[in-house]
Amino acid sequence: MLERFKVPEQDQVKVSEDSLHKAVSAIFEKMGLTPEDATDGADMLVTADLRGIETHGVSNKMRDYVQQYSNGELNPRPNWRIERESPGTAVIDGDRGLGVILGPKAMRIAIDKARQVGIGIVTIHNSGHLGAVGQFAMQATKEDMVGMCATAIGSGILPTFGAEPKLGTNPISIAAPTKSEAPFLFDAATSAVAGNKIRLAERVGANLLPGWIAETDGTPIMEERPVPGRGQYHMLPIGGSRDQGSHKGYGVNMMVEIMATFLSGALPSMLNLSGLARHYFAAYYISAFTDLDTFKENMDQMLQTLRSTKPAPGHERVMYPGLSEYEEEQERHVSGIPLHKEVVEWFEGISGELSVPQLQII
Amino acid sequence: MLERFKVPEQDQVKVSEDSLHKAVSAIFEKMGLTPEDATDGADMLVTADLRGIETHGVSNKMRDYVQQYSNGELNPRPNWRIERESPGTAVIDGDRGLGVILGPKAMRIAIDKARQVGIGIVTIHNSGHLGAVGQFAMQATKEDMVGMCATAIGSGILPTFGAEPKLGTNPISIAAPTKSEAPFLFDAATSAVAGNKIRLAERVGANLLPGWIAETDGTPIMEERPVPGRGQYHMLPIGGSRDQGSHKGYGVNMMVEIMATFLSGALPSMLNLSGLARHYFAAYYISAFTDLDTFKENMDQMLQTLRSTKPAPGHERVMYPGLSEYEEEQERHVSGIPLHKEVVEWFEGISGELSVPQLQII
Repeated sequence: MLERFKVPEQDQVKVSEDSLHKAVSAIFEKMGLTPEDATDGADMLVTADLRGIETHGVSNKMRDYVQQYSNGELNPRPNWRIERESPGTAVIDGDRGLGVILGPKAMRIAIDKARQVGIGIVTIHNSGHLGAVGQFAMQATKEDMVGMCATAIGSGILPTFGAEPKLGTNPISIAAPTKSEAPFLFDAATSAVAGNKIRLAERVGANLLPGWIAETDGTPIMEERPVPGRGQYHMLPIGGSRDQGSHKGYGVNMMVEIMATFLSGALPSMLNLSGLARHYFAAYYISAFTDLDTFKENMDQMLQTLRSTKPAPGHERVMYPGLSEYEEEQERHVSGIPLHKEVVEWFEGISGELSVPQLQII
Repeated sequence: MLERFKVPEQDQVKVSEDSLHKAVSAIFEKMGLTPEDATDGADMLVTADLRGIETHGVSNKMRDYVQQYSNGELNPRPNWRIERESPGTAVIDGDRGLGVILGPKAMRIAIDKARQVGIGIVTIHNSGHLGAVGQFAMQATKEDMVGMCATAIGSGILPTFGAEPKLGTNPISIAAPTKSEAPFLFDAATSAVAGNKIRLAERVGANLLPGWIAETDGTPIMEERPVPGRGQYHMLPIGGSRDQGSHKGYGVNMMVEIMATFLSGALPSMLNLSGLARHYFAAYYISAFTDLDTFKENMDQMLQTLRSTKPAPGHERVMYPGLSEYEEEQERHVSGIPLHKEVVEWFEGISGELSVPQLQII
C-alpha cells in the first residue's frame, strides 16, 4: 500500500490479533449469525487487517456490516442454495448472506469440483460484500490449487469516455502456491483506486493522485487533489485516462462483470440497484495440469528472479504480488494490528451497546 | 485503436479480403503446412486485419512467421499431443507449432469439455506466436459459450520498481455472446502498450505517450517521445508508473503467466530463452450456469446502457469492448483492407520468391 494510505503513527492504536478476532466474532453472533459463521467471518476480516489490507479488514468494513445486518439489508441466517450445477460448475443464490461468510463455502465447493474434474467454478448472486477477494484465492492454495476470486459490486466508475458512472469497483485476485517463497497473491480493484481507499484517504487526510478520479463531467483529473466532497467526483478504471490505458482497465473490469454477474444469471449494478453483489470463485487442481512439485519449484524460481531484479533509481527493491502483505502478516502476528483511533472508538461504542467484550489495546 | 496508430491515408493500399486470404494461405502452404492448417491460419490473420487489429494481423506478423518457418524455429507439421488430461482440462505440448494454427484446435477441445462438465480449460506450451488472442475467445461465443484466451510470451517489460525487464506482453481476452448487440470482446496486452504497437508507431512515425515506456534505468518516461532506438528503452505494465497503478498491470500480467505458463508445466520467458510461448484457453458453457436467453438479453441490456452513456466533453460516444472492431469489420468487408505500402511491397517480393499468386490491389 502507498505510504499515504497508512494510518499515521499518532493515530494508531495497536490491538492483538486474538482480541480483535474475539470482538469481531462476538459482534457477528450478536447480529444473529451462527457461532461457526461468526468465526469464519472473523477469520477473514482479521486476516485482511493482519496482512495490511486495511481497506477490506475490520477497520474499514465492520461498521458497514453491522449497519446492514441491523437494517435488514443482510440476512444473518441465509438459506443459500445451489440453483444450477454441473460436474465442474455451480451457481448459488446467496439469499442476502454476507459474501465474507458465504465465500469460504463457495470456494470449498469449487475445490471439491476441481479435485474431481480438474477445475471448479462457482458463482454467487444475491449476496452482500465479499471482503478482500484475495483471501478466497488463498483458500485454494492451501489445497495445492491455483485460486481465483472476483466480485462485481457498485456502479461508481466511469466507462472510458463516459460522463456517467456505470461500472463497479470489481476487484479480481489470483493466488498460486510455492515451495519456499511467500505465496503469490495478486488482489486489486479494477478501478484506478479502490473505492475504500478514497474513504481511507479522507480519514488519514491524504491527497488523491493524477488519473485516479474525474470531474463530474467525466474529464479525468490529471493533477494531485484532496478528496472532493461526496458527489463531487467520479471514479475511473485502472489506467485513468484513455491515453494511459483506461480502456484496458475498463475491459478487465467488464471481464469481472461477465464472470461474476452474467455467469450467475444476474444483472450488473448499473441495472439493478439492490446494492447486492455477485461473486466468482475458481479452483484449478494443479496435479490435473502438471507435476505439483515442478509447479511449485518453477514458481519459486520466478519469484526469486523477480525480487532479485535490480531496482530503478529511488526504489529499494522489486517486489512481487503478495510479498509485502506476507511480510506485514509476519510482523503483525508479533507486534499487533494498528487500528485508527476512530475505529477503536467505534468498537468501544458498539461493544457497550451489544454487551460484548471490549477490544484489548496493546 | 488510437488515431496515431492507423496507417496514414497516403501510405494505404487497399486489398480485398478474399485476395489477402488466398495469398496468406498459399504462403503458409509453401512453408510446409497442410492445406487445412494453412486455411485456418489465413482465417485467423485476415480476420484480425478485417477487425482493424493491424498489430496482430497479416500486416505486422506474416513476415515474422515466414522467417520463423524458414529458419526452423517453427515446425510446420507439429506432432502436437495432449500430455495430461482430466474431464475439464487438457495440457498440450505444441511441438513448436505456430499458435495461430494450434489455437483453434485447443479451443475446440475446451469447448467439448465445457459441454460435458460445464467448463473447459486447455493450455499449450512449446508453441509459437498465437496472434490476436481475442479471436480464440470469439470462437467460443459461436458455440454460445463465454470464451477466454491468453498467451504468455517475451520478457521485455519491467516489473514495478524494476530496472531490468522480466515480464512478457501477456495479452488476455474474454468474449461473450449477445442477442442483438455486437458481441462483447475485450482483448489487450498487459503492457502499457502492445509490443507490436511500438513497431507500428515507428512505421507510421507516431510518438509514444507518457507512461508507455521507461528509461533503460527503469524510470518511467512521463512525457511524449518519439520511439527510441532498439535497446534504448524498456516497456512498462498497464498503468505505467506505480502511482498510476502499474502494480495492478504487473499483477494482471502475472495472472496470465500463471494461467498460461505454470498451468502448462512450463517456465516463463524470463527463465527460458527459447522464444516460444504458452497459451491458455477457457470455455464456459453458459447453459450450465444459467438460462442462455436470459444471459444474452442481459448482455444486450448492459451493452446498450454502456453505449448510450452520456460522453465526457470532447468525446463523441462511449463504446464497449469489441464495438469499434465490429464496426470496422462491417466496413472492411465492403471497402477492403488497408495495408501499409511497405507490407504490400513485402508481399510482392515473397509472392515472387515462392511463386504464389500476387495480392490484388483494389
